Amino acid sequence: MMFIDLNCDMGESFGTNIIGNDEGIMPFLSSANIACGFHGGNPSVMYHTVKLAMKHGVAIGAHPSFPDLEGFGRREMNMTASEVYDLIIYQVSALAGFVKVSGAKLHHVKPHGALYNLAARDATLAMTIANAVADIDPSLILYGLSGSELIKAGKTRGLITCSEVFADRHYQDDGSLTPRTKPHALITSTSVAVVQVTRMVKENIVISDQGNPVPIEAETICIHGDGAHAIHFAKEIREALESGGITIKAS
Amino acid sequence: MMFIDLNCDMGESFGTNIIGNDEGIMPFLSSANIACGFHGGNPSVMYHTVKLAMKHGVAIGAHPSFPDLEGFGRREMNMTASEVYDLIIYQVSALAGFVKVSGAKLHHVKPHGALYNLAARDATLAMTIANAVADIDPSLILYGLSGSELIKAGKTRGLITCSEVFADRHYQDDGSLTPRTKPHALITSTSVAVVQVTRMVKENIVISDQGNPVPIEAETICIHGDGAHAIHFAKEIREALESGGITIKAS
Amino acid sequence: MMFIDLNCDMGESFGTNIIGNDEGIMPFLSSANIACGFHGGNPSVMYHTVKLAMKHGVAIGAHPSFPDLEGFGRREMNMTASEVYDLIIYQVSALAGFVKVSGAKLHHVKPHGALYNLAARDATLAMTIANAVADIDPSLILYGLSGSELIKAGKTRGLITCSEVFADRHYQDDGSLTPRTKPHALITSTSVAVVQVTRMVKENIVISDQGNPVPIEAETICIHGDGAHAIHFAKEIREALESGGITIKAS
Amino acid sequence: MMFIDLNCDMGESFGTNIIGNDEGIMPFLSSANIACGFHGGNPSVMYHTVKLAMKHGVAIGAHPSFPDLEGFGRREMNMTASEVYDLIIYQVSALAGFVKVSGAKLHHVKPHGALYNLAARDATLAMTIANAVADIDPSLILYGLSGSELIKAGKTRGLITCSEVFADRHYQDDGSLTPRTKPHALITSTSVAVVQVTRMVKENIVISDQGNPVPIEAETICIHGDGAHAIHFAKEIREALESGGITIKAS
Repeated sequence: MMFIDLNCDMGESFGTNIIGNDEGIMPFLSSANIACGFHGGNPSVMYHTVKLAMKHGVAIGAHPSFPDLEGFGRREMNMTASEVYDLIIYQVSALAGFVKVSGAKLHHVKPHGALYNLAARDATLAMTIANAVADIDPSLILYGLSGSELIKAGKTRGLITCSEVFADRHYQDDGSLTPRTKPHALITSTSVAVVQVTRMVKENIVISDQGNPVPIEAETICIHGDGAHAIHFAKEIREALESGGITIKAS
Repeated sequence: MMFIDLNCDMGESFGTNIIGNDEGIMPFLSSANIACGFHGGNPSVMYHTVKLAMKHGVAIGAHPSFPDLEGFGRREMNMTASEVYDLIIYQVSALAGFVKVSGAKLHHVKPHGALYNLAARDATLAMTIANAVADIDPSLILYGLSGSELIKAGKTRGLITCSEVFADRHYQDDGSLTPRTKPHALITSTSVAVVQVTRMVKENIVISDQGNPVPIEAETICIHGDGAHAIHFAKEIREALESGGITIKAS
Repeated sequence: MMFIDLNCDMGESFGTNIIGNDEGIMPFLSSANIACGFHGGNPSVMYHTVKLAMKHGVAIGAHPSFPDLEGFGRREMNMTASEVYDLIIYQVSALAGFVKVSGAKLHHVKPHGALYNLAARDATLAMTIANAVADIDPSLILYGLSGSELIKAGKTRGLITCSEVFADRHYQDDGSLTPRTKPHALITSTSVAVVQVTRMVKENIVISDQGNPVPIEAETICIHGDGAHAIHFAKEIREALESGGITIKAS
Repeated sequence: MMFIDLNCDMGESFGTNIIGNDEGIMPFLSSANIACGFHGGNPSVMYHTVKLAMKHGVAIGAHPSFPDLEGFGRREMNMTASEVYDLIIYQVSALAGFVKVSGAKLHHVKPHGALYNLAARDATLAMTIANAVADIDPSLILYGLSGSELIKAGKTRGLITCSEVFADRHYQDDGSLTPRTKPHALITSTSVAVVQVTRMVKENIVISDQGNPVPIEAETICIHGDGAHAIHFAKEIREALESGGITIKAS
């Protein structure tokens, strides 16, 4: 039998009226990365989102970020390793508090935005994050970009890791994502995305922009929760995978 | 033998260069209330302050606040009970994370500023805070103003409570603090403060502004950490109490 | 000829990808209230929204708020008159900077959320806001709830005021809005909203929940920019008013 | 006659009780750089500091920063030129609002912390800042590190610039500051600082760590406002310069 995890960033809004598509997308996921207040969310949104995930049996992860509410955590900040360690401890522990009072168990940690991207290529930062996660709870699973420094650091530290691929992004010959600045970066067709994802899961292969098959480890697929068609896209991807004999579940 | 706890608000600064008197005052305390980032502090200051407290054998408490960094948590905010519950869970859990990775144990929770004052007189808010603290960990001690609704709520919820008195504030006939807006609010003489505190601890009595003895429960004394003479004042209070046969220790 | 202004809160999002319906709704407005970073928005969103308003010939207003990013400015904060004065100066001046470098002129000020509601009923707060607006620029127009203390304070201070009514809210016999906590608070039918708004503009009358005609001054209509049908609703209201012989323009 | 400006960063605290040495140091300055709420300060502290500067006849400058309250603006953030332009417009305009309602005139702009350091060596960022300052008001004076890209950019854009030197820092043969990470970075002796500063002003020379005379343009001297001896140091520097025949005044 084949398995894959479907994850999505959740709880990134402020104020009760702009919670976006969270309610609509949650039913299609197997794991949710919940914002911890540094790039989005606030204590009440966090608690609400934890309960929403539990209602749908979705595994709960912390989604820590650089402290950049105004920039949605998408701007790199030049922080020391020690500062990054500290902000991981803070955010993951805060979310773990809501998980605990809800009677659930925290499942994983996935860095957000600029922190995710930096940790993919900076081995020191990656090791810092892996250490923080392990120090909080060595049974936490570390999500990171497939083939990244973060996945390597997690394995080195003895953590269970989860290699993430993207349903709606093209890849290069070296296994990296086609930069968003390139016209061909995004896959907008659901059917093309389904074909790519299915191949990643079943054959561990992605066809690069250059037309070559590139080996890739795919343990979780990132679904984007924003945009007009997000719910439709999540539903299509899930149904296509399931009808292809792949079970959707968190590791 | 007689005991009293000496507590002080710690870790309320930003940036490594303005940590104020924390290093100087910590040696004279038995418990420290550490800011959780909502009115002061940040993840790195929190971790630093946890380690500083451990170095001096000082009991570690969380010092949660309304989210009001610019106003130092001193402005009342009209939040729902559920919002207050959530911000207590968030902040206490975040600090608990640093305590855990340091190998220590979180000892108590003391609300800060406007949240402390509101919880002293608002029974619903007080119960909300007591519930949040108990839900995180029922062995946590709840610090609150002596005679306040917060202390009542903590007892009702089955928490161990700790009644706080002030060394440098005058009291009214009804046991309340003389408002800061009155000229006579503050005690600036160390020797007068020592006399008041000693009587509170030994006789459970404070002499009001009106000249009457008023019963008061004194389990912990709040020392102020800011101001030019804060370290001197902390040292004097501690030495006077100890020379009066009172042992300084956290409950 | 009859005139009415159509205003909407704009620029309340963070991050470039979640700007919501601003682009879609702006063409239907005659004035825009732009968030100033305290409850939503950030410098880049502010500048973007100023340019978007200019492109559509929409009058630009500042939309200052209590400092409560996490709560979207919807929670009352207990601030002194002097603190409120200062936050109005800060936010309105910041927005005015973007208006100035864009070669436009700031048109009005409308407080946001809890600040708007408090200023409607608290005469002291209302006067504080009117003073701040007048001190920045006495030609600025002050928007406030029709019949409110804020409108009175603006007139007292010699400002031009603009009385706001709501297209999608029911009213009480005393001219106040039916509280959102009541089931009947919101008007969800566009045609019912159009009838109410047309009567407000043409006859200065609103039919209360109790079925009575209540006098009301209507100089600007607030359109809500969030929700799935916001653009459709804005378009319908505008077209209905125009086909009824009412010109849409800022005062 | 010889002139020099003495500037200091002011208004960087939160809450009314921790304003630090501002009241004590202001009398010794000729210009003040006032925090704009992004690394320190808040609207009320800004207004208070504007009035304090006016009381002492001190020229008022804006002190904009990266948005990093928790890190005191000392961490580099990877922002686009357009984002930096926007945050300069926002912060300088907000401060200008308080200056205007106080009946004064904004005198200069000096970037803070990581933004100051980046703008010293990054020509693109420097030009962005110069453009923003000139767009707000071309008569504003741009303060920057002596010999830096920021000073060059200001001149290129047609702004009056003011070259800053440090009284309490050592210099290298290339005119750069000895990094704080080196043991010899800081000058702790007031008399050594006075000798260095006097030579900078009178001879446009600084003796480097390597013992060589290095040409340096000195139009303003930065005084640090924090630390136990800040007031004493400011007083000594000012008196020594004045007794050496140098007049302290803003350009």
